[in-house]
Amino acid sequence: MTEELKKRIAVIDAALNDYLPVCDKPQGIIYDAMRYSVFAGGKRLRPMLMWECAKLLGGDWDTVRPFACALEMIHTYSLIHDDLPAMDNDDLRRGMPTSHIKFGEDIAILAGDALLNKAFETVAAADHADAAIAIRAMGVLSNASGTEGMIGGQVIDLKSEGKEIAIAELQHLHLLKTGALIRAACVIGGMLAGADDKELDSLDSFAKALGVAFQIQDDILDVTGDEETLGKPIGSDAEQDKNTYVRLCGLDRSKQLVEKYSKDASEALKGFGNKAEFLNKLTEYLINRNN
Amino acid sequence: MTEELKKRIAVIDAALNDYLPVCDKPQGIIYDAMRYSVFAGGKRLRPMLMWECAKLLGGDWDTVRPFACALEMIHTYSLIHDDLPAMDNDDLRRGMPTSHIKFGEDIAILAGDALLNKAFETVAAADHADAAIAIRAMGVLSNASGTEGMIGGQVIDLKSEGKEIAIAELQHLHLLKTGALIRAACVIGGMLAGADDKELDSLDSFAKALGVAFQIQDDILDVTGDEETLGKPIGSDAEQDKNTYVRLCGLDRSKQLVEKYSKDASEALKGFGNKAEFLNKLTEYLINRNN
Repeated sequence: MTEELKKRIAVIDAALNDYLPVCDKPQGIIYDAMRYSVFAGGKRLRPMLMWECAKLLGGDWDTVRPFACALEMIHTYSLIHDDLPAMDNDDLRRGMPTSHIKFGEDIAILAGDALLNKAFETVAAADHADAAIAIRAMGVLSNASGTEGMIGGQVIDLKSEGKEIAIAELQHLHLLKTGALIRAACVIGGMLAGADDKELDSLDSFAKALGVAFQIQDDILDVTGDEETLGKPIGSDAEQDKNTYVRLCGLDRSKQLVEKYSKDASEALKGFGNKAEFLNKLTEYLINRNN
Repeated sequence: MTEELKKRIAVIDAALNDYLPVCDKPQGIIYDAMRYSVFAGGKRLRPMLMWECAKLLGGDWDTVRPFACALEMIHTYSLIHDDLPAMDNDDLRRGMPTSHIKFGEDIAILAGDALLNKAFETVAAADHADAAIAIRAMGVLSNASGTEGMIGGQVIDLKSEGKEIAIAELQHLHLLKTGALIRAACVIGGMLAGADDKELDSLDSFAKALGVAFQIQDDILDVTGDEETLGKPIGSDAEQDKNTYVRLCGLDRSKQLVEKYSKDASEALKGFGNKAEFLNKLTEYLINRNN
């Protein structure tokens, strides 16, 4: 699996490099800052999911290339802004100084803005086989990253810091904050490859369950992980008084929940038969990851 | 003119209100913050230009409604982020507390992000007469607001603070920072109403000249304006050691330049004959404004 993932990451990184070139204009530093965070060594989970969901329906990398890179840009911008002093105030991300530590807070804010903007610039500039489907996919993308999706989740997260919330509220928060982009990845992948509504529903159910499993595993790693492997301090969630699955229902129950949701994810893909093998392996890999 | 502008502003505001409803979900505060800045009493110059440029080509308000509102959201997000402590650190905007003063820095950052996102969400969700033209217009919009447009200009502005720059550099800075959105307004208006390339070129030349005239007038008002009418402290550019036309070429020369560029703007519209009357009056109004 690791080898296969590496190969795919290389393909995704090459496309991101094309969309985000080094720039020697007077504003070149903004490209440096965008590239710094985009190439800081992410898992490329979202582009990978979009690509593989397109493959389930007979599509390939070219089917999703601009949308997959756009989604990764949006994910990256959200990390840059999340790390800012006024937000989580994190100095390290993936073992490297965060954007505002490296470039200053002003450039970090603009680099986040620029990546969000570049995401839509990238999909608008692409050649589309079907303009109407492309606009529909842009709708899914922008909805998932906005106030009814990721940003909505970030707001709820900020507002619930320091208060203990119910597990249902925590689930809702994560459904928006991390789940929305993961669902958009899978739905857009299917959509661009011509999936029908029933197939899109299956992909969405898969993504929804995977997103929850992924988030709980994240919370678990914040407690049980190794600082060096993880690239950030252990226990930072507790230190920041964040609501996590581990805090609300304990470590053992959290581990059970990861198992449950990863089974739900796999279940949702049954209709695709053997073609879903890679996605099932990827799910397995993600819930057993240590970073 | 003032009465006519008021009427049009009311139409634009009603559309913005539709796209940005009050929201009673847990993340509702983000809508409050978006609405606070959007409805802080802007001139709606960009939507107004887009609308009128569409009218020149036989279009109407419905032709441009989602794009015009999207552009105003992008303009507003840029103001919110520009005012942040890490950027211009302004406490007042249009006589009211800036977003981070009112809602805190975290929500202000997210409100800016959310408005940029909502701009693309709005155009993606709209019904389009021609999906291919809509995508082309999204390309113009996203390009104008990104690293090759407004954000690029903001970066150059930040990097040139405290250094005296040449007038050509200042012009380039403003061509990106404020000019790009004004040009996008006019070009998209024409594009959605079916303008040909020659007509789009004329609209772009008009917008380019208007943008420069508008910016120089802004710099003049920072020196000669009245604090109460302007809604912000006088002399804040000089205090922040900003490069302005007034600083680089003096007040008299700046006033001459406003005249020159407003004539260029009017000249660019000659081909449209009498139909350009409102745009010419608007130009006149803008260069004689006191806020």
